[in-house]
Amino acid sequence: MSIAICPGSFDPITKGHLDIIDRASTIFEKVIVAVAHNMEKKPLFTPQERIEFISDALNDYNNVEIDSFTGLLVDYAKKKNAKAIIRGLRAVSDFEFEIQMALMNRRLHGEIVTAFMAANEKYTYLNSRIIKEIAQLKGDVSKFVTPLVEEQLKKKYMNK
Amino acid sequence: MSIAICPGSFDPITKGHLDIIDRASTIFEKVIVAVAHNMEKKPLFTPQERIEFISDALNDYNNVEIDSFTGLLVDYAKKKNAKAIIRGLRAVSDFEFEIQMALMNRRLHGEIVTAFMAANEKYTYLNSRIIKEIAQLKGDVSKFVTPLVEEQLKKKYMNK
Amino acid sequence: MSIAICPGSFDPITKGHLDIIDRASTIFEKVIVAVAHNMEKKPLFTPQERIEFISDALNDYNNVEIDSFTGLLVDYAKKKNAKAIIRGLRAVSDFEFEIQMALMNRRLHGEIVTAFMAANEKYTYLNSRIIKEIAQLKGDVSKFVTPLVEEQLKKKYMNK
Amino acid sequence: MSIAICPGSFDPITKGHLDIIDRASTIFEKVIVAVAHNMEKKPLFTPQERIEFISDALNDYNNVEIDSFTGLLVDYAKKKNAKAIIRGLRAVSDFEFEIQMALMNRRLHGEIVTAFMAANEKYTYLNSRIIKEIAQLKGDVSKFVTPLVEEQLKKKYMNK
Amino acid sequence: MSIAICPGSFDPITKGHLDIIDRASTIFEKVIVAVAHNMEKKPLFTPQERIEFISDALNDYNNVEIDSFTGLLVDYAKKKNAKAIIRGLRAVSDFEFEIQMALMNRRLHGEIVTAFMAANEKYTYLNSRIIKEIAQLKGDVSKFVTPLVEEQLKKKYMNK
Amino acid sequence: MSIAICPGSFDPITKGHLDIIDRASTIFEKVIVAVAHNMEKKPLFTPQERIEFISDALNDYNNVEIDSFTGLLVDYAKKKNAKAIIRGLRAVSDFEFEIQMALMNRRLHGEIVTAFMAANEKYTYLNSRIIKEIAQLKGDVSKFVTPLVEEQLKKKYMNK
Repeated sequence: MSIAICPGSFDPITKGHLDIIDRASTIFEKVIVAVAHNMEKKPLFTPQERIEFISDALNDYNNVEIDSFTGLLVDYAKKKNAKAIIRGLRAVSDFEFEIQMALMNRRLHGEIVTAFMAANEKYTYLNSRIIKEIAQLKGDVSKFVTPLVEEQLKKKYMNK
Repeated sequence: MSIAICPGSFDPITKGHLDIIDRASTIFEKVIVAVAHNMEKKPLFTPQERIEFISDALNDYNNVEIDSFTGLLVDYAKKKNAKAIIRGLRAVSDFEFEIQMALMNRRLHGEIVTAFMAANEKYTYLNSRIIKEIAQLKGDVSKFVTPLVEEQLKKKYMNK
Repeated sequence: MSIAICPGSFDPITKGHLDIIDRASTIFEKVIVAVAHNMEKKPLFTPQERIEFISDALNDYNNVEIDSFTGLLVDYAKKKNAKAIIRGLRAVSDFEFEIQMALMNRRLHGEIVTAFMAANEKYTYLNSRIIKEIAQLKGDVSKFVTPLVEEQLKKKYMNK
Repeated sequence: MSIAICPGSFDPITKGHLDIIDRASTIFEKVIVAVAHNMEKKPLFTPQERIEFISDALNDYNNVEIDSFTGLLVDYAKKKNAKAIIRGLRAVSDFEFEIQMALMNRRLHGEIVTAFMAANEKYTYLNSRIIKEIAQLKGDVSKFVTPLVEEQLKKKYMNK
Repeated sequence: MSIAICPGSFDPITKGHLDIIDRASTIFEKVIVAVAHNMEKKPLFTPQERIEFISDALNDYNNVEIDSFTGLLVDYAKKKNAKAIIRGLRAVSDFEFEIQMALMNRRLHGEIVTAFMAANEKYTYLNSRIIKEIAQLKGDVSKFVTPLVEEQLKKKYMNK
Repeated sequence: MSIAICPGSFDPITKGHLDIIDRASTIFEKVIVAVAHNMEKKPLFTPQERIEFISDALNDYNNVEIDSFTGLLVDYAKKKNAKAIIRGLRAVSDFEFEIQMALMNRRLHGEIVTAFMAANEKYTYLNSRIIKEIAQLKGDVSKFVTPLVEEQLKKKYMNK
């Protein structure tokens, strides 16, 4: 079975992420959306909340699983028997970092392939950081995230 | 069956191309290497020669097919029931052109996914044009192409 | 009166160009769309055809004028009393060339300001060259150009 | 009346910023230099100090106003009846971030146009962060900022 | 005597850095590897440790000296009678920052030349930050650093 | 003796080139400006003319030699016992091509180092192609080339 990992912080998941996961799910027999537990960075949402938002958004997909991981991505991918790591590409700055990570991961574990996909052009300017900024400034993010995420962002920033 | 297309001019095929095709063949059940017949550009090798070089290089792969096409790539991919178009990514300049093509192809035929893969860092500076330039100046290209391609490049540039 | 020039080859004009011209027309009192007559390049359409396509597309704008020019853009802009040259920006490769031209034009004629505008993300991958390629390969370009341009592209490539 | 906003942190204003504001002031009837109050970032200078430096530098301009804002830039621009947001462009890394913001702002408030201008090549390597670094290391910043800013930077870093 | 400075944080030194220093040592009569003492950033290793790792790695070079510095790099370079500052170039994002610094340094002290060298393609994705990340996640960094650095990274992250 | 090669088409030499050669001459004991004889490209000026322009411009340099070459640059550099190849860097697009060539040359002949230098920011937008375009359109190129080159450009384009 061809398994792919879609790793990320997903803090929170955006429609850009969902677009990439949807496309990966048409190519691979199983797609694992893997939430990275990074002890050092301070996320806005807990891993549990982030997983909940992803579950809510991907309810209708039969071949998508949601999980979380710590440690090296390639070690996790190996454990899951994944053949590929899927990453979205938007801008040149993404591209360089992503290529670096892909080459590094290849060096660390040669059999796992990193495949990049271009997000729909509607989402070329989207990322979780910009969504949080707009939400914090009371801007409307309904075009960029699911209703559940929109609601939770509002709660977080209500009294700030 | 998950089918992917690896399109290109392959004038001639390099070890960078072969690296990408090899990796695609581990993910997809069938990979079609599709030589673009571009009436306008003047290739160094005929489509027949280019296909012969690819066949020679990919002899040991059971799930790789070689073909050629004219017209729009997405129309060809649709006809072949391909789920994905595979492209190698090396540099930022590649990246922009490739993203443009991927978004355009998505607009023209929404179901086909373009997936990018990073070539091994040994091949980041490789492309067919640079190989031809070195061969023409009597440089050694044996690290970058198969023995058959090396021999044919020498013949082409012998009396130039 | 604040006058801006939108220069280009417009071979042919696309919806990306029209988006930029529309936005420039909301800022400046007069916008001159100026078709560059480049003796060396071989355009697909004659300057007359290109001007006709632009006129057809911009019929409803009261503050947009259409013209053509030869020679240095800054000399033309000076003659027209323009305060600004407007350029669309899509990709990084655009960006570098455009910045070069803007700095050079500033050096040649310091008072004229080059202002860049980002095209709608729907058009980030659009340019006249790609449109001609798709039309030549019998692809559908109706989302990217006006009906008149679509029809004329079909005629041009009918028997090719 | 055509109004443009030049937003920024201006911590502190540099000759690169002043070059862009000067050019904007030749195109638009009124230019509002708007200091962003970002609660989260820790600026070196207070908003009051930053506004004072800008006032000092732009004393001779009749059509330039200085203001500060909190919240979303597009909401502020709308309130001010601005037609355009002006941003300087130096490097590719700028470019990508700026295009992202421009497209996002367009999505949030479609009528306001973001126009980019290239700073004089003398200032391509200038930004507030680099100025602060040099001042902190007791380097000479007199070519890059106004005398008032130079003096205040010296004071800030005197005993550090 | 032609003297060049190779400045950096070297926190810790990688095989990419060593590749650049090695190449610089074939061109210049003397190369000074200069560890930047940046009071603000929190390095993983102390300047003493970093110097020790560099000494260990460069033991066999007769024309390489190791030193540390505070303050402006160009002031240090002037004091050392250096003709050149050597910097490695990997990616486009490097490139822009480096060009900025080179032009700024040229402005601050016109006689010192910044020369860039491309690291071996094996090291295009290498930097100290990524090494520390992999070491922290218990990944294998032996291909990217010297045995001494590998051992010290293990110690640092043992109980984290 | 440390010898460096400054290769190029120099069709014609610009003040940007001269800036790089000047800086190289302060680092290396001997600098060879090497005009590439490319049979395929159609230069505006003959190799003899181009060498004449360079000689005229570099008359006052004792450690700069002028030569021309055909074939692979690394073979030429080896023959001349050069330790380094010097290239100017302006923009990101330059950068990628140049890094490709540097890595390829390193692969073809490992001992020769490619060193890049940033041209003065006054020349960031300068290249021979843009100079020829401006001259052809009767623009003023006196800030960008030597008086001899300016005069010869005028002659070339007089009746065009």
